[in-house]
Amino acid sequence: MNTNLDEVILGIRPVDTVWRSKARARLNDLAIPLNSLGNLLDLAEQLAAIQESMTPSVKRKMIVTMAGDHGVCAEGVSAFPQEVTPQMVRNFVAGGAAINVLAEAAGAGVTVVDMGVAADLSDLAAQKKILGYKVASGTGNMAVGPAMTREQAIKAVEAGIEIATRLIGDGVELLGTGDMGIGNTTPSAALLSVFSGKTPRQVTGRGTGIGDAALENKIRVIEQAIACNQPNPRDAIDVLARVGGFEIGGIAGLILGAAYHRVPVVVDGFISSAGALVAKKLAPASVDYMIAAHQSLEFGHRLMLEELSLRPILNLNLRLGEGTGAALAFPIVEAASRVIFKMLTFTDAGVTGPGKEDSAHA
Amino acid sequence: MNTNLDEVILGIRPVDTVWRSKARARLNDLAIPLNSLGNLLDLAEQLAAIQESMTPSVKRKMIVTMAGDHGVCAEGVSAFPQEVTPQMVRNFVAGGAAINVLAEAAGAGVTVVDMGVAADLSDLAAQKKILGYKVASGTGNMAVGPAMTREQAIKAVEAGIEIATRLIGDGVELLGTGDMGIGNTTPSAALLSVFSGKTPRQVTGRGTGIGDAALENKIRVIEQAIACNQPNPRDAIDVLARVGGFEIGGIAGLILGAAYHRVPVVVDGFISSAGALVAKKLAPASVDYMIAAHQSLEFGHRLMLEELSLRPILNLNLRLGEGTGAALAFPIVEAASRVIFKMLTFTDAGVTGPGKEDSAHA
Repeated sequence: MNTNLDEVILGIRPVDTVWRSKARARLNDLAIPLNSLGNLLDLAEQLAAIQESMTPSVKRKMIVTMAGDHGVCAEGVSAFPQEVTPQMVRNFVAGGAAINVLAEAAGAGVTVVDMGVAADLSDLAAQKKILGYKVASGTGNMAVGPAMTREQAIKAVEAGIEIATRLIGDGVELLGTGDMGIGNTTPSAALLSVFSGKTPRQVTGRGTGIGDAALENKIRVIEQAIACNQPNPRDAIDVLARVGGFEIGGIAGLILGAAYHRVPVVVDGFISSAGALVAKKLAPASVDYMIAAHQSLEFGHRLMLEELSLRPILNLNLRLGEGTGAALAFPIVEAASRVIFKMLTFTDAGVTGPGKEDSAHA
Repeated sequence: MNTNLDEVILGIRPVDTVWRSKARARLNDLAIPLNSLGNLLDLAEQLAAIQESMTPSVKRKMIVTMAGDHGVCAEGVSAFPQEVTPQMVRNFVAGGAAINVLAEAAGAGVTVVDMGVAADLSDLAAQKKILGYKVASGTGNMAVGPAMTREQAIKAVEAGIEIATRLIGDGVELLGTGDMGIGNTTPSAALLSVFSGKTPRQVTGRGTGIGDAALENKIRVIEQAIACNQPNPRDAIDVLARVGGFEIGGIAGLILGAAYHRVPVVVDGFISSAGALVAKKLAPASVDYMIAAHQSLEFGHRLMLEELSLRPILNLNLRLGEGTGAALAFPIVEAASRVIFKMLTFTDAGVTGPGKEDSAHA
């Protein structure tokens, strides 16, 4: 199993343009007014090109929810106490969380990963109820020093690659990212600020729901974290190490692993997009394999999607994480996979095409 | 089976506010940051209040695709010839159209109805492959006279009520509207213009894809239809009769039937929303039972949704009709139905709630 970061990065190729054209030609011939299924056709083209198949299949679907804790919580950046991270991991295992319900509704599985929760979850890992890839018991407080070492950052990303590889080996055809980590909108906003060049004030939002004073504090903390750590925006591992998080690194790795194995991956909200941004900076072609699930209500997510050049499928004012937006988008992606080979063309269906003016317009 | 229009209108009650509050209280107690599932929670509240149940069920789902032809096609308002309407009905029956593929992906059935196709489809009705409710072989050309008589308009709406009643009697828990009718963005835009008071130019778009000259002609045709017919905006049946369509009347009736029987109905795109607007004008409380599937690319649909005060679930640049947007939205509605009773609350899950500041903020 190849999980070596450098080799995986080198092995990620852009999606084949010949397959894109071939898929689009078929989609343009379907017995519907040209492009009248809009973004569904774009998704269908992407899926066919990724799988290099005119009968793409994304039936076997898995959400991977990566959990980690954040030393920066000591600065009062979240409305919730840090103990909620392991509590929610146990809620995922019990099946009572939003991601369980929404993944089940989509016919998808949920794989929960301890990437660095600041609590002992070894009982759950031993019972194989979660995957144990704990890099450390929470990151360091980035307001006063690096969140993690460079080695830990690579370990987190390689864990994500390994998980993607295992799941794809087991037959998963569509991956979805998810996160759990009290405080993790803070490192996500920091990553966005460093990679985009925008100020922390331009990218920072209320997370789980902090008030005005706490938001001002959060912005100051991110400013301080960037000032004291001086991450190098041209070195994505350096940025992840200094102002990132273990679950964010895991998500980046999951996406890289998916791209390496030519499997589409649905990126959830703000935190997942931060992971996607790290993946893009490491391997720009990985974006070809990404599908943006939704536009989160979290301030800054719009900018994040612009940095990724991705158009979200849903806009439901979600801001929960866990992979919930990805699970909600799964049925749309699955529907898109079917239109390319289950629908009839004008000729097949015996339906008259548009008149001349429209053809000229096409 | 009560399909009398006046009695059905009188029998439609607004959704119960006590049930809304009860549902919202439970949703506010789920182990997630307050409102972090956004519009999914609004849908969950609506479904629980419609069904007056804390365990709403929308598993048994049906798209009803209403087909009809339009005399106004003689004015060159569409890129496609009128013969495509019956050809597409046969494509629906063959299972090769977009609505077949997308409904199947959503686990929903498709009921195709001949509301007034200008071709003999009695073979399909006799074989029970479609429902035969043909009011007439296409409407009259509204550019030179009324599209239909008042009696025909009532007959079309009552057909929709009867179909809803039959399907609900068979156990359908969630209805979705759909349309097929070459030329039908023209009467839809005319209805919107009359009901909203906006000019035809402000509400008319390119339908299946007409060019600039044809669009100018379409606007002139709608202006002429309104001028020569003088529909009374305070009498929705009069407006439907003068500048509407048989399938639009059928859709209005389907929605009224759903509301009467307290069943949620997902409204597809521009043409379906025109039907929904007729339903709203006849029975304002029917809006409580409507769910807008998507924001169509068809110019004017945004205004239509504003008139209905509905927020669309999807924005995928669709403009096909058939019920395709409704089918794509079904899984989101079904997911919403589950969050209210399958997710654990903070207390159930043993998860610590937010700190003081957030509570004050809630």
